[in-house]
Amino acid sequence: MKLNELGEDAVVGRLIKLLRVDNRVKLRAGDDCAVVRNADKLQLLKSDCIIEGVHFLPDANPKDVGWKALCRSISDIAAMGGKPLDALVTVALPRELEFDWVKQLYLGLRKAAHEFGVNLVGGETAKSPGPIFISVSLTGDVIDGKYVTRAGGKDGDWLFVTGSLGGAFNGRHLRFHPRVEHARWLVEGYPIHAMMDLSDGLASDLPRMAAAGGLGFDIDLGSIPRTPWFRLENALYDGEDYELLFAVPDSAKACLEGAWKEKFPSLRLTAIGKLVKAGQRKFAAKGYDHFA
Amino acid sequence: MKLNELGEDAVVGRLIKLLRVDNRVKLRAGDDCAVVRNADKLQLLKSDCIIEGVHFLPDANPKDVGWKALCRSISDIAAMGGKPLDALVTVALPRELEFDWVKQLYLGLRKAAHEFGVNLVGGETAKSPGPIFISVSLTGDVIDGKYVTRAGGKDGDWLFVTGSLGGAFNGRHLRFHPRVEHARWLVEGYPIHAMMDLSDGLASDLPRMAAAGGLGFDIDLGSIPRTPWFRLENALYDGEDYELLFAVPDSAKACLEGAWKEKFPSLRLTAIGKLVKAGQRKFAAKGYDHFA
Repeated sequence: MKLNELGEDAVVGRLIKLLRVDNRVKLRAGDDCAVVRNADKLQLLKSDCIIEGVHFLPDANPKDVGWKALCRSISDIAAMGGKPLDALVTVALPRELEFDWVKQLYLGLRKAAHEFGVNLVGGETAKSPGPIFISVSLTGDVIDGKYVTRAGGKDGDWLFVTGSLGGAFNGRHLRFHPRVEHARWLVEGYPIHAMMDLSDGLASDLPRMAAAGGLGFDIDLGSIPRTPWFRLENALYDGEDYELLFAVPDSAKACLEGAWKEKFPSLRLTAIGKLVKAGQRKFAAKGYDHFA
Repeated sequence: MKLNELGEDAVVGRLIKLLRVDNRVKLRAGDDCAVVRNADKLQLLKSDCIIEGVHFLPDANPKDVGWKALCRSISDIAAMGGKPLDALVTVALPRELEFDWVKQLYLGLRKAAHEFGVNLVGGETAKSPGPIFISVSLTGDVIDGKYVTRAGGKDGDWLFVTGSLGGAFNGRHLRFHPRVEHARWLVEGYPIHAMMDLSDGLASDLPRMAAAGGLGFDIDLGSIPRTPWFRLENALYDGEDYELLFAVPDSAKACLEGAWKEKFPSLRLTAIGKLVKAGQRKFAAKGYDHFA
């Protein structure tokens, strides 16, 4: 069976079963990051990659490409309530590439590292006969065991999204801001049952979060916050929004909404619906599939 | 200037200057691993990648490819005297690839993980229009701050290599055994001034180690241990031996050689010459260059 016949979720699901873990590992792939116990502290581990022609176009500004390469992993660390720490960057590059392109790439990586307090500590360079490939691995910290997974949602929890969704392909996917500060504020002050970042589009990611908790969902399509000039379809299916999707109990909703407005007046927070008993799915999932 | 005009060491040298580190970072790229302080403990961080058509041929056994992908990073952790811990695997795959190929790849990764006590905790899968690409990130532990770099060699130190060199392209490069146990035994019991693993060939790697310590070297070419049926040229230039190269003071030489024979009777240990004052280089370095 070929990868595109199986589809991304099936491929990932099968590969997860082939991982190897001992009891130091609290959580492995399937969530945004792995969680391991290290020196009596929990550590988040994440790797991610972007590929020329898939995640960025050949004429993209290399500085933006570097920003995106690091910020994708930062967004995953953030989605678990973590603080990003140390990054390794592996690049596979055509031999004919101009050094200046690589330098600009690194300047973009540095800019993101500086913005989010990340160390760029090393990596690897390799020549490649194929497209430019950039892989970033990132470690992260969590406070007092307070990390949040996709799986903890409960029947009746409110679902929130930050910012607005859709239209990322229009250049936004290269210049997004991971919600590190917002996610930590949420995790420290509120009973966040489940959280993830929206990378493949709400229509793909929400069903994943619901399924991880053995739940369904009931969404008010009209309430989904859309990027100006874009349609509902874009908000559901475009992907690469890198906004937070999270679930909180009804009891915390009003208080959270009030405090958010004071703390982050410039970033929208929208209740889009609820997690409900398994079986109910308010919209069909046909979002971006990595192998389709 | 294009990457192949600059050459690998110049590219890496320039990129290292573009990294971003704070005072938690003890050591960054240029050595085999980065070293960071984490929860009052030192942690090693390493990433590496292998690419179809560069590091393995399309018809290679995918299980061997998985073994190699993880063992390369394990070898780097070993080369600093560390214990490998947790690995993330990022793969970029053509959509038309058979799932079974990926499964065999993961079985090879698992086999290496099991052999060296590593956790495979997660990673990323992406589709790619290019060749198969596998990137591995690995964390490692060091005991009591006892890690060894390439840079600590002193004038007059003896240079040793483990095993035999050359002929790796003949299939050996897919099935090598990182010298984890040997390296830890060395670091725990002996004053190892400098150490690295031989990945690009002695003719490239030895000058790097000497230069890192501001030194030259004086090698007895006849003493270099060669893989049976292979020539001195192979031992110097083939690369991908993944044996250890290390430097110890003259005072420790005899004792180390005796103890090694008892501890590791099946693996050769050979003194090939000495580190000397800067300037002297007994052979010309024209080994494998990643961008040539």
